[in-house]
Amino acid sequence: MTEESAQPERIGVLRPTLEAVAELAGVSRATVSRVVNGGAGVRASLRERVQRAVEELGYVPNQAARTLVTRRNDAVAVVVAEPESRVFSDPFFAQQLRGIGKELSAADSQLVLLLVEDTGDYQRVGRYLAGGHVDGALLFSLHQDDPLPAMAHRVGLPTVIGGRPWAATDRDQLYVDTDNRGGARLAVGHLAALGRRRIATITGPLDQTSAADRLDGYRDILPDGDPQLIAESDFTQEGGGRAMAELLARRPDVDAVFAASDLMASAALRVLREHGRRVPEDVAVVGFDDLESVAAWTDPPLTTVRQDIEDMGRLMARLLLRRLAGNGGADAARTTPASVITPTRLVVRASA
Amino acid sequence: MTEESAQPERIGVLRPTLEAVAELAGVSRATVSRVVNGGAGVRASLRERVQRAVEELGYVPNQAARTLVTRRNDAVAVVVAEPESRVFSDPFFAQQLRGIGKELSAADSQLVLLLVEDTGDYQRVGRYLAGGHVDGALLFSLHQDDPLPAMAHRVGLPTVIGGRPWAATDRDQLYVDTDNRGGARLAVGHLAALGRRRIATITGPLDQTSAADRLDGYRDILPDGDPQLIAESDFTQEGGGRAMAELLARRPDVDAVFAASDLMASAALRVLREHGRRVPEDVAVVGFDDLESVAAWTDPPLTTVRQDIEDMGRLMARLLLRRLAGNGGADAARTTPASVITPTRLVVRASA
Repeated sequence: MTEESAQPERIGVLRPTLEAVAELAGVSRATVSRVVNGGAGVRASLRERVQRAVEELGYVPNQAARTLVTRRNDAVAVVVAEPESRVFSDPFFAQQLRGIGKELSAADSQLVLLLVEDTGDYQRVGRYLAGGHVDGALLFSLHQDDPLPAMAHRVGLPTVIGGRPWAATDRDQLYVDTDNRGGARLAVGHLAALGRRRIATITGPLDQTSAADRLDGYRDILPDGDPQLIAESDFTQEGGGRAMAELLARRPDVDAVFAASDLMASAALRVLREHGRRVPEDVAVVGFDDLESVAAWTDPPLTTVRQDIEDMGRLMARLLLRRLAGNGGADAARTTPASVITPTRLVVRASA
Repeated sequence: MTEESAQPERIGVLRPTLEAVAELAGVSRATVSRVVNGGAGVRASLRERVQRAVEELGYVPNQAARTLVTRRNDAVAVVVAEPESRVFSDPFFAQQLRGIGKELSAADSQLVLLLVEDTGDYQRVGRYLAGGHVDGALLFSLHQDDPLPAMAHRVGLPTVIGGRPWAATDRDQLYVDTDNRGGARLAVGHLAALGRRRIATITGPLDQTSAADRLDGYRDILPDGDPQLIAESDFTQEGGGRAMAELLARRPDVDAVFAASDLMASAALRVLREHGRRVPEDVAVVGFDDLESVAAWTDPPLTTVRQDIEDMGRLMARLLLRRLAGNGGADAARTTPASVITPTRLVVRASA
């Protein structure tokens, strides 16, 4: 198929044609088509002439046609399966997107952000991912029943998942995770070392591996803990505040809290203050994330488990780009790096 | 071109073919292709058989090929030409995206979010917009030198702009704006009616029409105002705080401030408090936006100019979808509704 046979007729729009480029460059249409699609087998001098003509006329190759030839879009989807209200209020996503954006930008690949508001959206997002608009996808915030990894796998779209998936639909599935369980052990171990004896935890949604792993870390340190000291929540500020109030009602003698995210920890601080508890004197609090705009600014500043969120975004993008560069063959599978678990560390501030 | 000739060879991926669908449905490949591309001229009973086979096999038509036939992606780009750090910290964008998302979702069209971090990104974003991946685009936060409307126009991509553009590159250019000038007059008129005599303003970036129009509204009420009472800023919290500090240094006798966004107004409240000024007794403050998560929660709650941000997002999406539905001909231009200016009103709370 030649380039121009796919050139659409758009009514009322003057769009420079492939013929016009060929005429200005003084070459055949086939040559222009070859240059536009990567330039293989075209002399450098001819290629430059064509490129000058392309620029002069502002010619834009029809991408749908070009994609059929090159199989490249120079674009990567980032799919966040969380409500827009959460994506935009949780600095976690912004920091991760910043890392991804920097890495893709350096590779001249366009970041295409797709949000999944509710389960009805999966079908449409899956269609877009299958539609040849992106070269690969980074998938975020995967709850247990998230159908996207399987959808992407079925249509052969390379993906990297943010956070360990529950079950690998594909043994080559790449992901970047943080050491959630080890981080939680650091947090709870620190509270135990301070002599706290009634250490509660506020968890994230337990259908996410990050939340389940942090709870496992808590249990590693406190295998015989009272289940009343565990409050399941959802990683949000509102949820964290509600969970803290519940814990105070159930166990007024609580003397420490490990909240599995900084947003939940900051809400816990507020609820403790409203109930007249001093932090850390009466109740010590540790968070998780070390969000740059949150942890250092709470009152008192938050002791928390640091994960390098922006760097995780960069790593995800880098893994995907490497898989795309080696796309396809068995060789690529051998040289493509494996999934990554990034380390955590405890940042001690005033709250514990 | 038939559907299957464009079916890509992907190594190592089992992807159901058009032939498999034809076999299962007991119809010809041409019939499957026609159904997949819209079903024109295919009997309902045959169409249903094909659709059942498509679902059973999980067949996904090659979209690049399909797009060449249908010219439809069922996707709309939202381009925000602001740094990610601002997009994710300013609730304005989240509210507008919510409105857009609801409207597109109802039309089963995918929202594709593209951020422009710096001027180097325009080329890449323009390429994606030109690439046949979306049916149209909503363009936001246009500074005076933003090349995107012209880029989109050149490749014939229908657009609706959020905010009045400086110069229409196209007399049919659709936009949705709020009555910025009228809103500013309401705010400053209210302060004047309270008897305030040294009314300052903190502006947005004056290369955006929204900021320029709000300053014009201020000048409508105070044509002979002291230029020292005008502090140019950037719509952000940090910028608003800096501008308030400057105003206090230049004119310690200031007795009222119209800040052209709620985020700037909330920072102004904080800076005034730090300088020992009581609001509204010493200095009355009015904002602009009525952001749901900001205006009612400041201390004291903020008197502000309300614009219905979510509704503006819905209107933008609706205008674009209507233009797409009537795509192309001269008839469409006649029936497509014109740009919209939405009204504002003053919401009086404690700050003025």
